[in-house]
Amino acid sequence: MVVDRLKQVASHVSGQTGPPHPLDPLSEAEIAQAVAIVRKEHSGLFFNAVTLWEPRKAQMLAWLADPKTAPRPVRTADIVALGLGSKVYDGTVDLEAEKIVSWKLTENVQPLITMEDLQVVEAIVRKDPRVIEQCGIIGIPPEDMHKVYCDPWTIGYDERFGNKIRLQQAFVYYRPNPDDCQYTYPLDFLPIFNTETHEIIHIDIPPVRRPLNKAPPINYHAEAIEKEGGFRDDLKPINITQPEGVSFKVDGRIIDWQKWKVHIGFNYREGLVLSNITFNDKGTERPVFWRLSLAEMVVPYGNPEHPHPRKHAFDLGEYGAGYMTNSLTLGCDCKGAIHYMDAAFVNRAGEATSIKNAICIHEEDAGILFKHTDFRDESCTVTRARKLVISQIFTAANYEYCVYWIFHQDGTIQLEVKLTGILNTYPMNPGEDLHGWGTEVYPGVNAHNHQHLFCMRVDPNVDGPNNTVFEVDATRGPGEVGSQENYHGNAFYAKKTKLATAGESKREYDGSTSRTWEMVNPNKINPYSHKPVSYKLVSREVPGLLPKEGGLVWRRAGFARHAIHVTKYSDDQIHPAGRHVPQTSGTPSHGLPAWIAANPAENIDNTDIVLWHTFGLTHFPAPEDFPIMPAEPMTLLLRPRNFFTSNPCMDIRPSHSSTPTAVAKGQAVAVGDPASRLVGGGECCAK
Amino acid sequence: MVVDRLKQVASHVSGQTGPPHPLDPLSEAEIAQAVAIVRKEHSGLFFNAVTLWEPRKAQMLAWLADPKTAPRPVRTADIVALGLGSKVYDGTVDLEAEKIVSWKLTENVQPLITMEDLQVVEAIVRKDPRVIEQCGIIGIPPEDMHKVYCDPWTIGYDERFGNKIRLQQAFVYYRPNPDDCQYTYPLDFLPIFNTETHEIIHIDIPPVRRPLNKAPPINYHAEAIEKEGGFRDDLKPINITQPEGVSFKVDGRIIDWQKWKVHIGFNYREGLVLSNITFNDKGTERPVFWRLSLAEMVVPYGNPEHPHPRKHAFDLGEYGAGYMTNSLTLGCDCKGAIHYMDAAFVNRAGEATSIKNAICIHEEDAGILFKHTDFRDESCTVTRARKLVISQIFTAANYEYCVYWIFHQDGTIQLEVKLTGILNTYPMNPGEDLHGWGTEVYPGVNAHNHQHLFCMRVDPNVDGPNNTVFEVDATRGPGEVGSQENYHGNAFYAKKTKLATAGESKREYDGSTSRTWEMVNPNKINPYSHKPVSYKLVSREVPGLLPKEGGLVWRRAGFARHAIHVTKYSDDQIHPAGRHVPQTSGTPSHGLPAWIAANPAENIDNTDIVLWHTFGLTHFPAPEDFPIMPAEPMTLLLRPRNFFTSNPCMDIRPSHSSTPTAVAKGQAVAVGDPASRLVGGGECCAK
Repeated sequence: MVVDRLKQVASHVSGQTGPPHPLDPLSEAEIAQAVAIVRKEHSGLFFNAVTLWEPRKAQMLAWLADPKTAPRPVRTADIVALGLGSKVYDGTVDLEAEKIVSWKLTENVQPLITMEDLQVVEAIVRKDPRVIEQCGIIGIPPEDMHKVYCDPWTIGYDERFGNKIRLQQAFVYYRPNPDDCQYTYPLDFLPIFNTETHEIIHIDIPPVRRPLNKAPPINYHAEAIEKEGGFRDDLKPINITQPEGVSFKVDGRIIDWQKWKVHIGFNYREGLVLSNITFNDKGTERPVFWRLSLAEMVVPYGNPEHPHPRKHAFDLGEYGAGYMTNSLTLGCDCKGAIHYMDAAFVNRAGEATSIKNAICIHEEDAGILFKHTDFRDESCTVTRARKLVISQIFTAANYEYCVYWIFHQDGTIQLEVKLTGILNTYPMNPGEDLHGWGTEVYPGVNAHNHQHLFCMRVDPNVDGPNNTVFEVDATRGPGEVGSQENYHGNAFYAKKTKLATAGESKREYDGSTSRTWEMVNPNKINPYSHKPVSYKLVSREVPGLLPKEGGLVWRRAGFARHAIHVTKYSDDQIHPAGRHVPQTSGTPSHGLPAWIAANPAENIDNTDIVLWHTFGLTHFPAPEDFPIMPAEPMTLLLRPRNFFTSNPCMDIRPSHSSTPTAVAKGQAVAVGDPASRLVGGGECCAK
Repeated sequence: MVVDRLKQVASHVSGQTGPPHPLDPLSEAEIAQAVAIVRKEHSGLFFNAVTLWEPRKAQMLAWLADPKTAPRPVRTADIVALGLGSKVYDGTVDLEAEKIVSWKLTENVQPLITMEDLQVVEAIVRKDPRVIEQCGIIGIPPEDMHKVYCDPWTIGYDERFGNKIRLQQAFVYYRPNPDDCQYTYPLDFLPIFNTETHEIIHIDIPPVRRPLNKAPPINYHAEAIEKEGGFRDDLKPINITQPEGVSFKVDGRIIDWQKWKVHIGFNYREGLVLSNITFNDKGTERPVFWRLSLAEMVVPYGNPEHPHPRKHAFDLGEYGAGYMTNSLTLGCDCKGAIHYMDAAFVNRAGEATSIKNAICIHEEDAGILFKHTDFRDESCTVTRARKLVISQIFTAANYEYCVYWIFHQDGTIQLEVKLTGILNTYPMNPGEDLHGWGTEVYPGVNAHNHQHLFCMRVDPNVDGPNNTVFEVDATRGPGEVGSQENYHGNAFYAKKTKLATAGESKREYDGSTSRTWEMVNPNKINPYSHKPVSYKLVSREVPGLLPKEGGLVWRRAGFARHAIHVTKYSDDQIHPAGRHVPQTSGTPSHGLPAWIAANPAENIDNTDIVLWHTFGLTHFPAPEDFPIMPAEPMTLLLRPRNFFTSNPCMDIRPSHSSTPTAVAKGQAVAVGDPASRLVGGGECCAK
């Protein structure tokens, strides 16, 4: 009966038949079922998260290796629920046996703040007499309280309030008109909100007051643009079409494209999760990565004045990249031939809800894949590249993060993140000295310096789970100029340093040596290069954590202290700042620092490992970022090195190809692109 | 009469009417005219280069400021000619007065090696008895000499031969079949060729011989792919069309696109040259850069064994990115709606010749330009980005460099370089220890470690020519954790260090501080941020020169010693390794080191300056790079900071736009993209 229901659910959600893949996110029906099972034994609960409890890796690998006889991993729900009095329950529910597997009250933690938690704050703030009083002080009369807005954030951590009560801090703003950009009118005080009782328990009031900004609104909506002269009319359409359909196949949530196979998961916390990534190398499906995700991030702001140090959002751990994800729109967010997937979540009341079009999957032309011309006769091969993009966009209050996992035909996986949205702002008095901690991006608007530090969780599976990480530095050879061994001084090589234990895996980026990290399988040697097969992490935007050692951010965001950590695989180690992040003090630090400190001598050589990589950028705002920021891109690559025995994409039909023999005979094969045109008229070479 | 002829020429080449723009490259007719003028006074010459002698900047700026009354810069040709006995003449010719302006014999230099110079070597190598003897020793019988090929390179510098004779070194290879990739069969000896007399003057023979590789061919041509199972057939077409035409206007060689204006030049040496780049900021054409180009590059190889240290190509200074540029093909190199420009050169005989379609200009969709969603009501604006790409591809023997200058709507200019083509290879014996200097990428094929170091010449014109460069480092604030000024340790700021003199402008990259360099105009302050207007260089692939101080590459490629140099503008300082690069010993170092050493105290603060940036990557080859390398991309950005008073692209019509008021009324404006489709059927939101 359970299997029947699961079949029905699976078919409803993704069009697939049969039971869901064990890595598929819980469907709406499964979420509802999990809640019902919990409710049979526990009453008075609100739900914070009901998500897939991912199958244990060993069990999953056994089933994948032998799906006919090995036991199929049981569909299990991972639950975070809230009882009265800020009580937090963590549990798991077996959806096939329809029973609770584990259930416990977890003390001294606060689970993330959901969109529902955020949504309730504004109305209460507007009515609070102390807020109304503060608004009056800075120039907002009581009758204008409907023009006061707030972006609630988790409190992060505030030693005055600890972690017993579930708190939010309400960044307050003003909108002269409902359509005005509120970030032009930040207010100078900060109410603290009890998420449980819906009360404002405190207001942080700065010693120097900053009255409401009097600058005129600056907006990007149509009415405002029309006032400034209207939209430009010289941008002609560019159409991207695939008249014969797309090149990828979708089997449930497994995408099959250009030798790649990848399972697309999604959860409330990490958003996109890519699993069991393989590349078909001449008929052999070779495992590459077991699991890839953005696992955490932190956005520390650089103003040391109270209460700004509290402003450092863990957008994944404190809010959830899944919960905050956008419902994407065809032709707007996504251009071309698009396949969407939805995302199902629980709400506070325990009902299942979905965000439609949470995931966008599409192909893009990617320019030249490879080219070579023989200078003798101009015989030439040029082959165009295609890429597959799996993406989501999430909105974290003022900011948007656009996350693109990009698969290339040459075996490269690229993660691109684009930052856009609106700067978090704070008011300033005319002529106020900002001490270098921020920039006046518009009259009266101070945008603080900040970093966006992402933690990518990489579970390598390079021809199998037993992998080792090497740090690779471009290094000058020995021997001084004039010596016999290095007479002209030009010797250089790739110095490789093995990371053998978790304790010694905490590594920094070094731009001067073009440092990379190779995830190798020491048990499998490339037959040509005699080097172990590997995937190399090439990441160049690695700013390092600017908040100082021992400080609040450093303690709470332990994962961000180093560019690289490597741990031995553990099923339970998914969240590098811990399972419950809000209101952690950082004493002790949860997640990565705790796991490594527990056994710094843990072997990470030739075993199942996880590499955690912190990358990102430091943002010193400028007026061109306001009132809405042009997308700032950032990218990193996972590249095969000594993995293949040759270029793995030579079997892509070239656009143009001629050999010396063909040139001599006056023959050339050009497939070209019949849709391309010369601006002045004329068509492709391939007519 | 001259003006009439110029008009005719200009019209012939670019469809424009009127005389050429002073920055336009010389047309075929102008080249022929220059040669004729020289020949009237000098006989027995061969031509190495006839190119535009660019107008002196002061004169050019005066004419641009007042084209009606200021004197129009005179069309002038810059000439390098060769007389018998390797004599080198440098001259300039006034094309309007039809007279030689300057002419001199330049001693102890060798001008670059042209494609014609390269092309003659192979036939002579094949017939040389000493080469035939060496081929015999390693297993190639005399009757197979037609299967021997060579890639001639300049000799670089070899102290045994100095710089009196114009030399090439011939990298020799073997092709079992004319269509086989020769880089699978490198030969172990190296003939040295006198370019003047067409004689082989020496052969470098290694102490340990390496017989001809016996491995089977590995190829990427169709026949080879068919043998391996054929081309994949699962890649569906992706069409990019602009049914209403492109969004850029072409006036001669000036492109006008999305508020940008740029003049597109091209010369034999640098290839693309972009000049007089302006951005129309609300009706005011603001200068941004006076001139941008790739000015030089060097590719040092990392094997210290003789004669490999000589292997370090200056692809621009020794061969020319213009001379080696590809004739591009619609639908193959370039996809979509394309505008091409040709390039005219002189040949050795003094005739003008052209490469058709040397420059590709086209637009691309560039994903999301900006987006923000209000979490309260999901009112949302999302605007798609477009970019303009101006590109060329040049083939340097085995390698190809794809150069893309990309203009973005937000005021950013991006330089992207893609590396593809084929690795330079050397033979190895079975089991030979490569000492880490190379990788066996295929049996018997050793690909040496190498760097690609590009020097970008940036002549900033940020609201005028008087600019200053600041080095910017993300830096922790003062005050330890627990101190009053920095209690939580989160303070950080952008530390800015002025580069005041040329001598102190030699700066390195620092990844740990996310180092950038700002080109500011200290005379123009952003009215909001109160910071000087600037463009910031954001470059993250900056490996530094690995060859050691004092060694051959370090001496010859002085520009590559530092990530940044800044010099006071001089009309004559275009080539950072000197005007004539082949066979320079590096003692003294030409170009940048010499210019700075001449006056290290030269003021570079608030004056007309040039910033030279060396970037690139270090390549440790792997089998997946062979036999043809999937394109490896590298990129850098020039971004406006404090240049605009707000986001400069808000007037681009959004794809989707709704305000809170519109949402409340159930209205939303979606322009969308009628060409986009759901994979399973369905159209854009904007129906």
